Amino acid sequence: MEVKARVIKMARDAKDASKILAGLSARLKDEALRHMADSIEKRTEEILKENKKDLMVAEEKNLSRPMLERLTLNIDKVKEMAQGLRKVASIDDPVGEIVAGWKRPNGLQILKIRIPLGLVGIIYESRPDVTADSIGLCVKSGNSVLLRGGSESLNSNIIIAHTLARASEEKGIPKNCIQIVETSDREGVEIMFKLNEYIDVLIPRGGAELINLVKSESEVPVIETGIGNCHLYVDKDADLKMAIEICLNAKVQRPGVCNAIETLLVHKDIANKYLPQVYEKLRGYGVEIRGCIDTRRILKGSARKRIIKKATEEDWYNEFLDLILAVKVVDTLQEAIEHISRYGSKHSEAIITNNYLTAQEFLRQVDAAVVYVNASTRFTDGGEFGMGSEIGISTQKLHARGPMGLRELTTTKYIIFGNGQVRQ
Amino acid sequence: MEVKARVIKMARDAKDASKILAGLSARLKDEALRHMADSIEKRTEEILKENKKDLMVAEEKNLSRPMLERLTLNIDKVKEMAQGLRKVASIDDPVGEIVAGWKRPNGLQILKIRIPLGLVGIIYESRPDVTADSIGLCVKSGNSVLLRGGSESLNSNIIIAHTLARASEEKGIPKNCIQIVETSDREGVEIMFKLNEYIDVLIPRGGAELINLVKSESEVPVIETGIGNCHLYVDKDADLKMAIEICLNAKVQRPGVCNAIETLLVHKDIANKYLPQVYEKLRGYGVEIRGCIDTRRILKGSARKRIIKKATEEDWYNEFLDLILAVKVVDTLQEAIEHISRYGSKHSEAIITNNYLTAQEFLRQVDAAVVYVNASTRFTDGGEFGMGSEIGISTQKLHARGPMGLRELTTTKYIIFGNGQVRQ
Repeated sequence: MEVKARVIKMARDAKDASKILAGLSARLKDEALRHMADSIEKRTEEILKENKKDLMVAEEKNLSRPMLERLTLNIDKVKEMAQGLRKVASIDDPVGEIVAGWKRPNGLQILKIRIPLGLVGIIYESRPDVTADSIGLCVKSGNSVLLRGGSESLNSNIIIAHTLARASEEKGIPKNCIQIVETSDREGVEIMFKLNEYIDVLIPRGGAELINLVKSESEVPVIETGIGNCHLYVDKDADLKMAIEICLNAKVQRPGVCNAIETLLVHKDIANKYLPQVYEKLRGYGVEIRGCIDTRRILKGSARKRIIKKATEEDWYNEFLDLILAVKVVDTLQEAIEHISRYGSKHSEAIITNNYLTAQEFLRQVDAAVVYVNASTRFTDGGEFGMGSEIGISTQKLHARGPMGLRELTTTKYIIFGNGQVRQ
Repeated sequence: MEVKARVIKMARDAKDASKILAGLSARLKDEALRHMADSIEKRTEEILKENKKDLMVAEEKNLSRPMLERLTLNIDKVKEMAQGLRKVASIDDPVGEIVAGWKRPNGLQILKIRIPLGLVGIIYESRPDVTADSIGLCVKSGNSVLLRGGSESLNSNIIIAHTLARASEEKGIPKNCIQIVETSDREGVEIMFKLNEYIDVLIPRGGAELINLVKSESEVPVIETGIGNCHLYVDKDADLKMAIEICLNAKVQRPGVCNAIETLLVHKDIANKYLPQVYEKLRGYGVEIRGCIDTRRILKGSARKRIIKKATEEDWYNEFLDLILAVKVVDTLQEAIEHISRYGSKHSEAIITNNYLTAQEFLRQVDAAVVYVNASTRFTDGGEFGMGSEIGISTQKLHARGPMGLRELTTTKYIIFGNGQVRQ
């Protein structure tokens, strides 16, 4: 069968199977998830063998070091995948939740109940653990899943998906609920963009390029995740010690993730005092600064013979995902808010201040999924929010905004109990 | 200025203004809405004069009678628009609602709060009252609105929008929050499809053709509304008297709306008894039946010399919006559910039964925005649900499903209060 026909069949089969999956009890799904966790641990050796195949191709292709790191599995990583599945099994099932309910004067009883979306399509890049993670979240939320991973991790993805699919079937999850596109053909992904009839939502998990491709090409509704050009604004009324700790945490604790900061905005009144101190610390972690004119002037002394690079217009837009920080001195709170509005990606934004009015104004005016006062942006994460698990961070405004847990993989329907009501 | 540049400017201005509108109090917005209501009543004469212009053009163009009816305004209809605005003023403001809130072990206080979407684009057809209605809902929910109505009602739409915009400004709503595209150029609507940067959501209000155009062309997120191919399934365990009343209500009380039924499904065990009775009544209201083979056989006697037309494949898909009813006899509940799944538009579906298991099965398996037991589908409506007002019925699964009230015109953001937390 050609790729296109095969993907269509997978999607149709998965959608059909989703109708049965939607009605299964949390108990059955949780048992299946635990069995799935056991089964990938049992097959660790085979999984690592397949992963080796991917790594050999990757090395031939001279993939970058971070790419190779994301691609590499080992015993611990397989164990982590299994633990992830067990964790999802331990979270409350959102399906069947009665979101709202009321009785109308005519006696109609209206219930708004949470149900699965149906079939979720996931398009992702090099990390093979996304395979297990996505399958776990979809099974738990009662959705079938159609996976299309990156070509680099094809062998790893296939063995993980097949292992989990088989184990899930052994515990009563319908065959066909878990599907993986087994080629790295571009055709495979392009056909997914057109399958409105079967796929209820497409979620891209990966870098900006992938997300933009899916957003612009897909006719299936998309939930955007993850681009994070986040800012930290240090106000004139900030506790400078706190501002230093939070800046360090938000930049260096894990620079390659979407909730790390890319730009530091500093009020002019405290810039002379704060910037040299924070620079001293950042430099210790090897952070490169790209500054505005004022920043460069202020840091000239501290930098000694090093040169502080000039921040370009592009730098303000950039999600570096690396030990690079753009720094700008601003005259007012309003200038900081406007900078964020212009360059930010509406992900996570933080202010450090002890001024009540300033904090309120920042919270009100900044348009982002998550806005912080006196805390690190690194907390924008399903786990840190207490959701148990997440499928990504939505930076859009419809359906879901911020960390997306199981609940965001569902929709609702109204069910209405009557006893003969007709409309007047 | 050319059309394209003008629409872009409108959208940008409206988006800028929305940032101020978002922060206004419910009290100010409600006062503005009541003043807006007074102002269109005061200008009734001028509004009717502009409406006459539209009607003259429409008559020249030989528009259909239903089109002309939708287009025609009179004193009562203007009063209704004003009452609609007053009603919106009386509903609770969704903006600022704290949807959820909790404290994390590290002391972070997380609040999920409801905020306006920003700028809502409305693309609609011939009914000029949609202008006032959309403006009212958007102002109340704190959103700017960019309207693009049908060419037939251009003069009526413009005077209504301008009257309301002026009145809103007099009460402190920022200038530019209410914008209307003042040409019927196709260019005006096409440019809206591309304005992701400014427009947060596009809502088409009109027939299937309009909705499909917007859905397929728009790069701005769309909320689909309104196509309703709804079914009534009369089970073998139905109370036949109730089944007749509900069928009549759902078909003839107002056949031109999306929550009226288009197809009647009848269990074979009661078809011989039920169909002649319900046909007798339907015929009294001039309803044309298009039946399956069994339906035609059963009704042959009752129809006397009339011929019951054969239902074509197309008829099962059709939203007649008229006094036409497709009728099919089914062997089982499952056959009814599968028919609905295949041909329905996931809007509103009803079963008449006194069997507990059958009712539960129908509620569980039927995938639609609203599923009824023993009640008319005609209740799928914001007013009937007790939402006060609605902007349409969403038949999609993301963001909103079913009647969309003010709350569905909002999004949320997380605001987080910390005292120096950093991630471990």
